[in-house]
Amino acid sequence: MRTVAWDPDGPTVRLIDQRLLPAQLDSVALRTSGEVAAAIRDMAVRGAPAIGAAAAFGLAVAGLTSDAPQAAMMLADLDIAAKDLRGARPTAVNLDWALDRMLAAARQAAPSGTQGIQNALIQESQRIADEDVEINRRIGLHGAELILDGDTVIHHCNTGALATVDYGTALGVIRTAHEGGKRVHVLVDETRPRLQGARLTAWELEQYGIPYDIITDSAAGRYLQTGAVAAVFVGADRVAANGDVANKIGTYMLALAAHDNQVPFYCALPTSTIDHALPSGIGIPIEDRDPLEVLGIQRQGKPIAPETASARNPAFDITPNRLITAFITEVGIIHPPFSNRLLRAVEEAKRP
Amino acid sequence: MRTVAWDPDGPTVRLIDQRLLPAQLDSVALRTSGEVAAAIRDMAVRGAPAIGAAAAFGLAVAGLTSDAPQAAMMLADLDIAAKDLRGARPTAVNLDWALDRMLAAARQAAPSGTQGIQNALIQESQRIADEDVEINRRIGLHGAELILDGDTVIHHCNTGALATVDYGTALGVIRTAHEGGKRVHVLVDETRPRLQGARLTAWELEQYGIPYDIITDSAAGRYLQTGAVAAVFVGADRVAANGDVANKIGTYMLALAAHDNQVPFYCALPTSTIDHALPSGIGIPIEDRDPLEVLGIQRQGKPIAPETASARNPAFDITPNRLITAFITEVGIIHPPFSNRLLRAVEEAKRP
Repeated sequence: MRTVAWDPDGPTVRLIDQRLLPAQLDSVALRTSGEVAAAIRDMAVRGAPAIGAAAAFGLAVAGLTSDAPQAAMMLADLDIAAKDLRGARPTAVNLDWALDRMLAAARQAAPSGTQGIQNALIQESQRIADEDVEINRRIGLHGAELILDGDTVIHHCNTGALATVDYGTALGVIRTAHEGGKRVHVLVDETRPRLQGARLTAWELEQYGIPYDIITDSAAGRYLQTGAVAAVFVGADRVAANGDVANKIGTYMLALAAHDNQVPFYCALPTSTIDHALPSGIGIPIEDRDPLEVLGIQRQGKPIAPETASARNPAFDITPNRLITAFITEVGIIHPPFSNRLLRAVEEAKRP
Repeated sequence: MRTVAWDPDGPTVRLIDQRLLPAQLDSVALRTSGEVAAAIRDMAVRGAPAIGAAAAFGLAVAGLTSDAPQAAMMLADLDIAAKDLRGARPTAVNLDWALDRMLAAARQAAPSGTQGIQNALIQESQRIADEDVEINRRIGLHGAELILDGDTVIHHCNTGALATVDYGTALGVIRTAHEGGKRVHVLVDETRPRLQGARLTAWELEQYGIPYDIITDSAAGRYLQTGAVAAVFVGADRVAANGDVANKIGTYMLALAAHDNQVPFYCALPTSTIDHALPSGIGIPIEDRDPLEVLGIQRQGKPIAPETASARNPAFDITPNRLITAFITEVGIIHPPFSNRLLRAVEEAKRP
């Protein structure tokens, strides 16, 4: 079962509702692009590659539900839908990347009319989804070489099948090593406030039969200090041209602790997550989410803080490139200096 | 209302049950030293200075409930009770420090018989508690000079009145600055897994009228990066002779993030928390607590992880002395190099 999929009867976008896991594995059927935007905003679907694919399918739904009689009017409808989808979450660049691809495909098909645009939208969204799975497989194969038999590794947030269309980026690397017969033990950062580690990564690791222990995000430093950890693996929501990484809140402190103990810190991502227009991480917008995510616990009734308490909730932070040992992409492992090598990887990935 | 107090009718040790806060402010009455040891183990009382005072009162109860007919037999009873209390939690050195003081007082009073020992125990435990409040006031006065009007500071765990007999160490510093008319805004680390920040520190700050926002422990790095934070204040459970600090899990990563952004990192503590027999932090025992603290949320019913999930839960970590800007003690602020200066502070504190 893919995290994000197209259901031609409808037309409908089907998503695993990640807010219900691990208690319940269920999917939602979304029939308008507005519903897809809401699902991204409310984190029924999350993870940069999964968000990109969901937005692509969302735009396909927008095209198929448009009653525009002419191509130009349908393109205008798509622009409006794309703007709504883009606004759903600001940090992951895959959202823009997927929508740009979809709009370009629609424009190219415009000469063949509204039917032609609709066909192009379905094809391009399906291609984005299929490519994502293939790209993740390649990331896994490249990255698995960095894991040795018997290694204990730390993983932050969720970067598995649930964060992508299928298979995963950083967790895909761990999964490939495991499938290749290496024994790997994962220390799973719980990832407050939304507990993507304790809820989603732990759930995935149970499916794959990979041994793990959940730890609080704060405990990662302690394990890195003791010499028990061979490497740290994270994903990315947006990587600037110089290799600065925007990723789930806590990534920066984790990278500092790895660096302080000479433990390699690897960032796994499709090249679509590289924002080559952005020179450094300074320009990456950081989403502030609802303080209630901090004041309570996911799907638990009682507040944990005083009733009148206030909170702040930045969802991402910026890890400077100096703390990254290497990037793992579908075209290979990229070591420093990153600036030209990341851009070269983007170009290489585009080649057929 | 003191966090830990002696009730002569009984004899009884009264503690605020910190597991119930912020929902409920209630106290428990403990009538045996075994009950006091259990309250320390189960964290009805926590915070190194509060644990020390609770253990002292616990030994007083042991003496008063002993039916030993002779002084030597009562001393033997006290040794057994002290051993039980010492084992309740391994990391905070104040537990040993307070019990050593109590046993010395008992031995000194032995020539005047069992009644003399009992009087000495009551007096010494009361003295430890009263001194703690006075020491915290002095820590607050010294440390408040490090806070400027308008500062935003980060605070980890709880180091306030609830972590001491009254007033607090690191939070006492913030409180003294506030009482002195300075505007201070506190970013409160929630402090997973037991949420001493979100539950206890937030509750205390509401009592004092000090503005604050709760953040996840992972978000501290983000705020330090943005230049919004003037200083970080933490307490300590045990400080080695060289200035390595054992404190609540997460302190090490917080210190790394402060250091990486040139933000001062201050550790406030009574000199009784300095373990001058220990050359470095390597020798400090780190308590592993129940994994269920990680797999669930304080006093919430539902588990957050898969039902079969496993977890690890180290309660403390070691922050190397190189990451500490200065220690704030009752005898003044101690800057590096720490080795001789910390020992000198211990000696100075003993002078009448």
